[in-house]
Amino acid sequence: MSKAELANQAGVSLSAVSIHVDRLLQEQLILLSNIGVSSGGRKPKQYSINKEYGFILSIELGSSFVQVAFTDFDCEIICLQSSNIHIEDGPEIILPYIHQVAEQLLKEHHLDPALLKGIGIGIPGPVDFSQGIPISPPIMPGWDQYPIREFWSKYYKCPCYVDNDVNIMALGEYAKGLSFDTPNMIFVKIGTGIGSGIIYDGRLYRGSTGSAGDIGHFDLGSDVMCWCGNKGCLEAVAGGKAILVKAKEYAESGQSEYLLTCLQDHEELILDDIRVGLQKLDPSSIEIVRASGTLIGRVIASIVNYSNPSRIVLGGKVSEFGDILLAAIRQSVYQRSLPLATRHLLINPSALGQKAGLMGGAFMTIDELIVQATNEDMEHYLK
Amino acid sequence: MSKAELANQAGVSLSAVSIHVDRLLQEQLILLSNIGVSSGGRKPKQYSINKEYGFILSIELGSSFVQVAFTDFDCEIICLQSSNIHIEDGPEIILPYIHQVAEQLLKEHHLDPALLKGIGIGIPGPVDFSQGIPISPPIMPGWDQYPIREFWSKYYKCPCYVDNDVNIMALGEYAKGLSFDTPNMIFVKIGTGIGSGIIYDGRLYRGSTGSAGDIGHFDLGSDVMCWCGNKGCLEAVAGGKAILVKAKEYAESGQSEYLLTCLQDHEELILDDIRVGLQKLDPSSIEIVRASGTLIGRVIASIVNYSNPSRIVLGGKVSEFGDILLAAIRQSVYQRSLPLATRHLLINPSALGQKAGLMGGAFMTIDELIVQATNEDMEHYLK
Repeated sequence: MSKAELANQAGVSLSAVSIHVDRLLQEQLILLSNIGVSSGGRKPKQYSINKEYGFILSIELGSSFVQVAFTDFDCEIICLQSSNIHIEDGPEIILPYIHQVAEQLLKEHHLDPALLKGIGIGIPGPVDFSQGIPISPPIMPGWDQYPIREFWSKYYKCPCYVDNDVNIMALGEYAKGLSFDTPNMIFVKIGTGIGSGIIYDGRLYRGSTGSAGDIGHFDLGSDVMCWCGNKGCLEAVAGGKAILVKAKEYAESGQSEYLLTCLQDHEELILDDIRVGLQKLDPSSIEIVRASGTLIGRVIASIVNYSNPSRIVLGGKVSEFGDILLAAIRQSVYQRSLPLATRHLLINPSALGQKAGLMGGAFMTIDELIVQATNEDMEHYLK
Repeated sequence: MSKAELANQAGVSLSAVSIHVDRLLQEQLILLSNIGVSSGGRKPKQYSINKEYGFILSIELGSSFVQVAFTDFDCEIICLQSSNIHIEDGPEIILPYIHQVAEQLLKEHHLDPALLKGIGIGIPGPVDFSQGIPISPPIMPGWDQYPIREFWSKYYKCPCYVDNDVNIMALGEYAKGLSFDTPNMIFVKIGTGIGSGIIYDGRLYRGSTGSAGDIGHFDLGSDVMCWCGNKGCLEAVAGGKAILVKAKEYAESGQSEYLLTCLQDHEELILDDIRVGLQKLDPSSIEIVRASGTLIGRVIASIVNYSNPSRIVLGGKVSEFGDILLAAIRQSVYQRSLPLATRHLLINPSALGQKAGLMGGAFMTIDELIVQATNEDMEHYLK
């Protein structure tokens, strides 16, 4: 983009854009990429992100896994390692382990630690973004208020940013999956639990205390108890955990021979059993997934009425169940949302899939690095 | 505020602020109000809105009433007239009537039509804000796509802005009731229907097609049919209309002598009967209002989980029922919301009450006039 285009899109003055662009050029965070076509006067210079400015350590932490990756400044993954963990082991076991994985990746891929410019981490719980600390995360015992940034500052001399995992997925999908195409987008992650990340007017919306996007405890009026202490929560009736509970009932009551075989084979059912069940057209698996999709769709319909987005993106392990789930969700949304709100609404699976979190973590970090650089300009300028 | 404070708060450069401030001064939309205290260098000049720049025609249209007012540039109401109407009479009867009321107010209060700088209108349905036209408003037959701006341009040479009524109430409460105190606020209007207006990060959020804030059709899982064709919508079980339906049942079944007397007295129950019933401690009125508050609270709890606001403001006719309703809503919200989301949450009645819409309409109009003036600067600057 040229300076004039940037000024126009950001709604700030050309002189302000000039100051920031010059500073970012000086820092080599952006490069002169092209001389554009003149529309009358001087030919405009066009700028783009300097992909080779350095790299980013992007970490996606789940309740039972961690993905550790290094990316370039275009958020593309250079190398990646996934491992199984137990998040309840706490930060003093998990963080050193992640550090060890990162060091190993650096070595194996001959990356120069001096070029590491930022660390971005997504965690499965609410975060005070400005301080980078988890706030009472319900599924992360031992992590409450833990100073994650301080841990990393012992090893690497670059800024570290921590955010909620679904926020980061939403950012990744918005920036890299959809190329900033839809200013109002909601990323719904359907995994063991159910959550969402919100992009409003082109910006990630975190809410007043960083907990925005929680849709797992929307009240659907049923009698099923949720771990949160209330009845009828979406997560209690439709999340990955709820699907497995129902599947086990179907197996044990003899309603599904396929699910019973799975249960006898490996004692506890896993989500992959259901995915395979759908492929094998096991009627019980289909029924369970459809019922779950209908309930998720009822909640998404409420969100669509309330926040009138232009796109709903579905991600997370359960969303990989594919068309049967997607069709049930869509049907339910179109049935229960107001026609005006769905007139131009798109509902689709994540374009980035399992990469959404890692690419989003990188994007969030690069974005913050740029914000930080321009804020320094501003302070300098206001003195 | 001074130029440096403005630049800081708006996150734009001092030079950009300077251009806009100079232009607004030239237009006399703002005034030099004070010479501030120096923090070292030159004493900063402070500016404020010029209250006497002119006045605004602010109109709040409901399904059965219209409020027409003139305000100053501080959104204070100079004069006001309320009338009963039937919105289904359509724009070709209603708009000329409103024009007549406005002309009468101008004359009676000796206001100079040349000083009318803008018209702001709130209507009870979705609006395409950029064009100022109603979009398939369900309770406004005959108004779909009607060019409201063109109507007014025949009479007054000033810009006209049209928005949804609850959006305007939210803006009024945010700007004038709470003095921009809470960046994330949701204004819930409980009247015949139930709707909300959303302030996110200090700005009104309208959604992709202008229908954001619709909470009347959140699914509560009950079997009651809603006019929208679905079952279990909030509006169908807890709005003003639902309250009156239930009250009539209580009257006819003999459960409430008080309500029966009201019904016999004036054939159809009205919301004022319930309000008086609460004052007289009629157990049935209390029970009905409490049940309604509990259901509204369940939906607000979902919104609180989803959008993590710092404040919920309750407005509209039913919200005037007072403490019994408020307590039931609060109880339900605190029971069903996640603790983190309610840690600093305030739930309170509107500070502006019935003035919220009119003051918000004026604020929206003044805000748009300023945006328009600064956009013209920008275009000039970019040439």
